[in-house]
Amino acid sequence: MLQEKIIDEFASIVSRENVITDQTSLLAYSYNATPLQQQMPAAVIAPRSTEEVSEIVKICHREKIPIIARGSGTNLSGGTTPIDRSIIIVFKHMNKILEIDEENLTLTTQPGVYTKDIFDASVSVGLFYPPDPGSMHVSQIGGNLSENSGGLRGLKYGVTRDYVLGLTVVLPNGDIIKTGGKLAKDVAGYDLTSLLVGSEGTLGIITEAILKLIPKPETKKTMLALFDDLEAAAQTVSDIIAAKITPATLEFLDQATVQVVEDYVNIGLPVDARVVLLIEQDGTEKIVNQDIEKISKICKTNGAFKIDIAKTIEEGEALLEARRAAVPALSRLKPTTFLEDATVPRSKLAEMVKAIEHIAEKYDVTICTFGHAGDGNLHPTCPTDARDEEEMARVKQAFEEIFEKAVALGGTITGEHGIGTSKLPYLHLKVGEEGISAMRSIKQALDPNNIMNPGKIFTFNGRGE
Amino acid sequence: MLQEKIIDEFASIVSRENVITDQTSLLAYSYNATPLQQQMPAAVIAPRSTEEVSEIVKICHREKIPIIARGSGTNLSGGTTPIDRSIIIVFKHMNKILEIDEENLTLTTQPGVYTKDIFDASVSVGLFYPPDPGSMHVSQIGGNLSENSGGLRGLKYGVTRDYVLGLTVVLPNGDIIKTGGKLAKDVAGYDLTSLLVGSEGTLGIITEAILKLIPKPETKKTMLALFDDLEAAAQTVSDIIAAKITPATLEFLDQATVQVVEDYVNIGLPVDARVVLLIEQDGTEKIVNQDIEKISKICKTNGAFKIDIAKTIEEGEALLEARRAAVPALSRLKPTTFLEDATVPRSKLAEMVKAIEHIAEKYDVTICTFGHAGDGNLHPTCPTDARDEEEMARVKQAFEEIFEKAVALGGTITGEHGIGTSKLPYLHLKVGEEGISAMRSIKQALDPNNIMNPGKIFTFNGRGE
Repeated sequence: MLQEKIIDEFASIVSRENVITDQTSLLAYSYNATPLQQQMPAAVIAPRSTEEVSEIVKICHREKIPIIARGSGTNLSGGTTPIDRSIIIVFKHMNKILEIDEENLTLTTQPGVYTKDIFDASVSVGLFYPPDPGSMHVSQIGGNLSENSGGLRGLKYGVTRDYVLGLTVVLPNGDIIKTGGKLAKDVAGYDLTSLLVGSEGTLGIITEAILKLIPKPETKKTMLALFDDLEAAAQTVSDIIAAKITPATLEFLDQATVQVVEDYVNIGLPVDARVVLLIEQDGTEKIVNQDIEKISKICKTNGAFKIDIAKTIEEGEALLEARRAAVPALSRLKPTTFLEDATVPRSKLAEMVKAIEHIAEKYDVTICTFGHAGDGNLHPTCPTDARDEEEMARVKQAFEEIFEKAVALGGTITGEHGIGTSKLPYLHLKVGEEGISAMRSIKQALDPNNIMNPGKIFTFNGRGE
Repeated sequence: MLQEKIIDEFASIVSRENVITDQTSLLAYSYNATPLQQQMPAAVIAPRSTEEVSEIVKICHREKIPIIARGSGTNLSGGTTPIDRSIIIVFKHMNKILEIDEENLTLTTQPGVYTKDIFDASVSVGLFYPPDPGSMHVSQIGGNLSENSGGLRGLKYGVTRDYVLGLTVVLPNGDIIKTGGKLAKDVAGYDLTSLLVGSEGTLGIITEAILKLIPKPETKKTMLALFDDLEAAAQTVSDIIAAKITPATLEFLDQATVQVVEDYVNIGLPVDARVVLLIEQDGTEKIVNQDIEKISKICKTNGAFKIDIAKTIEEGEALLEARRAAVPALSRLKPTTFLEDATVPRSKLAEMVKAIEHIAEKYDVTICTFGHAGDGNLHPTCPTDARDEEEMARVKQAFEEIFEKAVALGGTITGEHGIGTSKLPYLHLKVGEEGISAMRSIKQALDPNNIMNPGKIFTFNGRGE
């Protein structure tokens, strides 16, 4: 618990009604979307400006109080879970899109805005923000994420980071800095924008972001290709790329996932296929038609037993929405859902999927796999029960082996979700002890008191956090 | 000078013929493409592998010997100039493209390879490496660059950083780390790839890079649009973007630059225009034709007095080569050439060009301006004579004012070339003292002995380097 006089100090900055300390409310903030509950925070604070964030951080710096910046708590790796005596900063008052600049193709936003609203605001002026509109806050771009880095549109449009031009950041000492700007190019000193995006809130708090928009594609078309053979589906993905086609979306769903999703959404998804590829192309009408035709041919050549092209944009949207429903659908099966994020070079996709199946069998656990095939980014997902210690031990072993396999194939332990606490034990597999040591020294330099989201990504200075 | 026994130690790693210490040879390495000569290095060393680089760095770490990694010395901000007692690492033996992976669309290369060769190797298999093929070494991607970040193709294709997927890096303590991989997505810990790219050799030495390739555009078309009015040309740039067209190239040349280039290349460039826009679009034939037609209309609407569409790809290439000749052409005018790199939001282009003209007049110096209009990236260039101290003082004042103006317009002091030594005094204008302090603390954490390219980007620990 924090001393009453410190709580008073916070209240004098943000006003009393923006400092929550009652236990019932705090309980809601002891979780994020990761299965395991963490400790209780000491207070939840809702600042109204960058300056207020800075004042709060200065107190925390002085008093060595841990700070966790939180969007809507959708993190999947424990990135926003608190520890004892920490405060949580929420952005419910800093929730405005500040500007859309149609001349420079930028959007400036506060951290408490949903990605979907950024997407909609862009589309309303004929522009396009490519990172997939989930329910994530912008705060997660840098405050606590990693996540949503590309999502369904990663293959053609890249990752969230590619669309962040500049940030306003409150550093661990309370300093306010601005990185970048409305600029296509900027190489004035170290790239602090990239360092902050994906630092999972361990280096500073992002209070404003300038995002890059692009022209909205003219039209789009969506299709499903059904396979009864895993290799054939993976070969199809490779052949599409080899044909120099870059679809906007190229998703992979295994049979188990399709079944679960269909049970949830009831839109007539094909539950008889071993693998479903969900493919979308956007651009000019001619390009879209041409590409969808070429892709259909490649699917047929590789033995797809059915190809379904959505007749309307709405029908296509429904397929994408079904895909986005995979996580909630899978979460209904069992009390606990472990959603993972192993990523491999695209050419290793089939090998990785087979390895996951083999590992699931070996440890006798259920794993449904879906993901962004075009990016080599898979989400093996295990519906389980955290109360069953024996099964949890097997789940843990299975995922360890999945991570090891991904890295052995030249991949990584997380393509989108970040390290947080849940993948902290495996980071060394990917970056080595030397890599962790380099990262830790950067953390130590910018945050010597270890107040910014301590205990995430790696442990620090022997406090075991 | 270094002790003989340390030179012997270096020689025992890379063999004697790869350690140069004679004064005549060293003199060549006391310069880069920046006007002013620096001090003499103590030795020039040519390692043959990452492991050899690591061994050399370990000695330098122990003996506190400064190290400068150098490509072909084309840096324009003093990024590769040595200081006393330093060694220079050159990559003449580490000059191979190691692999092109057509399945994953990646190219793996050593640092001593020219960008042009990477471009050519990619094209030979139907792929495309977008950063403009100048004469820059890959080592400049991270060892000493910033530079070549997008160049003529920045608007559509982004900057060099967007095409660097992973690096092998020797850290200042001699540790070898690998960042990233052949992956579309990777968020395992801090983004060390971005931090290293553009760190100008101050955080580590890049010994290998995995680059991202994209499908080669089907065709392209090039055009010139001539204006006798600056605002009209700038408005044209804005209108092209507003029409949701993203040209591959959108270059700006003022009359003085066109005149100088034509004197040099003699291909009949239009020397009668106040401003020339050089525009190229690539893609499918239909898109290219459509876009070039739309762009032509926009140019005419804004009062272009002539529009010239290249009849062949070769003719278009000649125009681009002429544009690339701007720097050598301008360098012929006077003994010294100051080439700058101010960048502003695209919408501020006209205002910035006018400010440059006004400042040139105020300080009575010649400034020719050309640059990447689509990126808001301008290269005001001053042919002068470093021996004329009085004129040099005026040149310095003029550029200071240009930097201040760029930042005041929401821009930056360098869009491509980096800070090096020549822009070190102005970094605070862009990132503030708080930003410099954050950068310095990262440098100090990774390189406590300050051996990696000391004295570049910012000063450090009171040694005045």
